[in-house]
Amino acid sequence: MHYPEPIAKLIDSYMKLPGIGQKTATRLAFYTLDMKEEVVNDFAKALLSVKRDLHFCSICGNITEEDPCEICQDTTRDRSTILVVEEPKDVMSMEKMREYRGLYHVLHGVLSPMEGTGPEDINIASLLQRLHDEAVEEVIIATNATTDGEATAMYLSRLIKPAGIKVTRLAHGLAVGSDIEYADEVTLLKAVEGRREL
Amino acid sequence: MHYPEPIAKLIDSYMKLPGIGQKTATRLAFYTLDMKEEVVNDFAKALLSVKRDLHFCSICGNITEEDPCEICQDTTRDRSTILVVEEPKDVMSMEKMREYRGLYHVLHGVLSPMEGTGPEDINIASLLQRLHDEAVEEVIIATNATTDGEATAMYLSRLIKPAGIKVTRLAHGLAVGSDIEYADEVTLLKAVEGRREL
Repeated sequence: MHYPEPIAKLIDSYMKLPGIGQKTATRLAFYTLDMKEEVVNDFAKALLSVKRDLHFCSICGNITEEDPCEICQDTTRDRSTILVVEEPKDVMSMEKMREYRGLYHVLHGVLSPMEGTGPEDINIASLLQRLHDEAVEEVIIATNATTDGEATAMYLSRLIKPAGIKVTRLAHGLAVGSDIEYADEVTLLKAVEGRREL
Repeated sequence: MHYPEPIAKLIDSYMKLPGIGQKTATRLAFYTLDMKEEVVNDFAKALLSVKRDLHFCSICGNITEEDPCEICQDTTRDRSTILVVEEPKDVMSMEKMREYRGLYHVLHGVLSPMEGTGPEDINIASLLQRLHDEAVEEVIIATNATTDGEATAMYLSRLIKPAGIKVTRLAHGLAVGSDIEYADEVTLLKAVEGRREL
């Protein structure tokens, strides 16, 4: 005997999510069965809405309901600075900080020789086009502090610097409030290298 | 700045699932954004279908697309035995074994003084009605081997035995293929108590 088809299909769908195997998917499917109908309806609507109502900003690549996005349209922002991130969620993290007032550019990935991701697979051409068309003075590269993120930062830096545009990278170092005891060696090395005079 | 509304709503929906907090929900929502449209559509359809197309069997309480369920309708099954489980998924587990040919009864919960679940909150009345109306010879109680599961088994046993119906409980003991070294003490005690002559 198999699961009734509606349950089997829902298990399949849950299994398509990252980090969710058959056991968890089964548990989630049976849990869904016990959820209130309106909650499940809202869930289904939210899924459809995310694919239907969200688009990528044609300028910066961030996710947005309107195109261009809120940030690209905001005339009060500093248009001479572009902060480059890997993913749309990184824009949200930066915005939560409430300090950065420039523009963004979302690469939608990083260069990764291991995964076969080359410069043409991520939003690099559109970044260069923006630098060419607009009066940008500084590009802040905020790719992740991973091997691929670092390599992408180096690659972009070599591409952009010759145009006379300042290229900077987010500082590496100890997380605020963290213990030196628990910092990994590479982070500690970066923290020493980036030390400042008091 | 907040997440665009469609993403925020999807994060909220994912967070309603058990074991999924804000961070995981956010990761799943952004992952959903990158999934193929048809996969997301299928997901939404599966969610709606589970609530719309599945019902509880009016006889045994198992989930089913038709009422009564396949098992209750199956005339080749042994109608003199009813196996009592906590949840519909337990029926699936039993059926996978392909040995049991009797009927089922799904309680949809267990008695739990801690959570305020009393006899009237789970499908006990309908079980007693079946025992009254049909020629049942044995009730196998297959509630989980937890405190609440055991208490529910004892409660049902005391209720059913006076009617002259045989009441049995699944055996407790070592899992097949498991090491004695790793068995907990209660399981080991049950295994010794339930020992059989070779």
